[in-house]
Amino acid sequence: MISTRLTAQFGLTHPVISAPMALASGGRLAAAVSRAGGLGLIGGGYGDGAWLEREYAEAGNEGVGVGFITWSLANAPELLDAALARRPRALFLSFGDPAPFAPAIHAADTPLICQVQTLDDARAALDAGAAVLVAQGTEAGGHGARRATMTLVPEVADLLTARAPDVLLCAAGGIADGRGLAAALALGADGAVVGSRFWASEECLVHPGLQAAAVAASGDDTLRTSAVDIARGRDWPERFDIRVLRNGFTDRWHADPEGLRAAIGTEGPRWGDAAAAGDASVANPIIGEAAGLMRDIRPAAELLERMTAEAEAILTAGAARVT
Amino acid sequence: MISTRLTAQFGLTHPVISAPMALASGGRLAAAVSRAGGLGLIGGGYGDGAWLEREYAEAGNEGVGVGFITWSLANAPELLDAALARRPRALFLSFGDPAPFAPAIHAADTPLICQVQTLDDARAALDAGAAVLVAQGTEAGGHGARRATMTLVPEVADLLTARAPDVLLCAAGGIADGRGLAAALALGADGAVVGSRFWASEECLVHPGLQAAAVAASGDDTLRTSAVDIARGRDWPERFDIRVLRNGFTDRWHADPEGLRAAIGTEGPRWGDAAAAGDASVANPIIGEAAGLMRDIRPAAELLERMTAEAEAILTAGAARVT
Ligand SMILES: Cc1cc2nc3c(=O)[nH]c(=O)nc-3n(C[C@H](O)[C@H](O)[C@H](O)COP(=O)(O)O)c2cc1C
Ligand SMILES: Cc1cc2nc3c(=O)[nH]c(=O)nc-3n(C[C@H](O)[C@H](O)[C@H](O)COP(=O)(O)O)c2cc1C
Repeated sequence: MISTRLTAQFGLTHPVISAPMALASGGRLAAAVSRAGGLGLIGGGYGDGAWLEREYAEAGNEGVGVGFITWSLANAPELLDAALARRPRALFLSFGDPAPFAPAIHAADTPLICQVQTLDDARAALDAGAAVLVAQGTEAGGHGARRATMTLVPEVADLLTARAPDVLLCAAGGIADGRGLAAALALGADGAVVGSRFWASEECLVHPGLQAAAVAASGDDTLRTSAVDIARGRDWPERFDIRVLRNGFTDRWHADPEGLRAAIGTEGPRWGDAAAAGDASVANPIIGEAAGLMRDIRPAAELLERMTAEAEAILTAGAARVT
Repeated sequence: MISTRLTAQFGLTHPVISAPMALASGGRLAAAVSRAGGLGLIGGGYGDGAWLEREYAEAGNEGVGVGFITWSLANAPELLDAALARRPRALFLSFGDPAPFAPAIHAADTPLICQVQTLDDARAALDAGAAVLVAQGTEAGGHGARRATMTLVPEVADLLTARAPDVLLCAAGGIADGRGLAAALALGADGAVVGSRFWASEECLVHPGLQAAAVAASGDDTLRTSAVDIARGRDWPERFDIRVLRNGFTDRWHADPEGLRAAIGTEGPRWGDAAAAGDASVANPIIGEAAGLMRDIRPAAELLERMTAEAEAILTAGAARVT
């Protein structure tokens, strides 16, 4: 077992949080991760009350947390109250200013976890009273920005040391096995937020056809693009784009967003139908560079055990190198 | 001291190689790093015979290696023979196909180090008989490509395990202190190639005005661009761009390469004059995201000692976390 401030503060066996992946991280995945000793989060995403109710029920009595896309939560703030009423183990916000939502979260005595992409984001998260910052690198699957995990984590760690030494830090982006987890700890993190690797788990709410394409790919096959959000009609702020597996759809439209907007009447439904059918030649699997580090779809608990056992072995071997 | 296959094979005290930064890594910097127990490389860059002769002389009898920009070496292949005649400790190639140059390097019994940006690059380096692969992430200063260090290093490590377990692996990109070095080892590397941090050393051949701007910056202030190569008249292959500190010059021209080409008669000299004068408001310091992890300009030996001592402490503390 690996002990960090994160395991101590949240009562975990393993310093790993499963990412609140919109519509993909349902109650079963979050509960499986929490049951196995990590902290599982439900992906509240853009906010769909009925979906959330169902997934809270799926999680049963297993202590899980929930995450929202911050800019989107502004359109449905009542979902935050509904979430807090369930006493989640943590409330995770990413992609936007957390300030408007922080007071309600603090009033509910729920730990606020803020995912940040820049130093300015980190300062805003501290201003909002976050208990945990998650420094997210550009290699991450899903939405994100430009900084890489390797430098953003230690730079945010230095900010915390100077300004808020009691606030915890997690690393996100590219962590899919014990090597990434051990590296995250070396960089100064208290734990890791893992998305892509749990996306490729049995409990994830995603079509097996998309998962199969992702585990067959190399990290060289992903890109950050706006084409997928245009196809899905999601109006994201310009500073965030989404990392996905490339395919014919992004080959055609990535460099031609205006053309895609003009053709959206046919291209939108074509992408959506393919996603429902699990056709990765049209619908892009939402996955990070860690695609190249995943070769199988397994139960989330097994993935977590494998990752942490490997990290333990690396930490132990690392010390033996010092003479 | 940290022992790895790299320290054993190259007879080093520390598993750190200083990057062959074109025109910035001269003989003094390379010799200082080698003298302090790392492997120092002279930055042969685009190939300038007179500059190289002078810098070999500056390095004196200290064992150093030399690096070239592969696509550029094709224009001046005689520089390779001149370099090999000096019996460098290693010949480092990056940015292009190493195959045409490998036979001469092997014939001279010189270890070939190939820096790679993708898995295809890694396979080409193995085909060329490289002794060491350097997986370079996008956070790196100078030229590079899209993959991040955090995922590229373990993915290349898996390729080596499967195909060439005796070939060594180093990580490059974002490594500026002991946290980065310890993380690189956790990811499966045998050592690190460090550029930006040594660029901000006393021995580096760069104007102090540019260094001062870099150590005052955050990693959020860098970007990958083609504007600087257009300004300098360097005709790089499209898949590589250069990471620099942003300023008014890139604010104006980054998104408008055609406009810059049209204005090159005045903008080219303006950029060049500013670089010579150390004016970072016009000439972009060539630096990576690690800018945010550097706060001082010190002798290279001190930077190396600091980095490795911190890494040792992290490796030791990491094992104590396992219970
Ligand atoms: C399929 C998918 C969906 C995601 N959706 C969200 C989301 O709704 N909200 C959020 O904060 N992060 C989301 N993320 C990003 C994660 O929070 C996390 O930063 C990322 O997965 C970490 O990098 P990794 O994918 O390399 O593990 C998503 C990631 C993936 C792969
Ligand atoms: C100023 C500067 C110049 C560089 N020039 C070269 C070069 O001529 N040839 C080369 O192979 N790499 C060059 N690089 C890239 C380095 O080899 C290395 O990949 C990089 O510095 C590692 O990332 P870091 O800057 O974060 O340490 C350069 C890097 C910098 C910062």
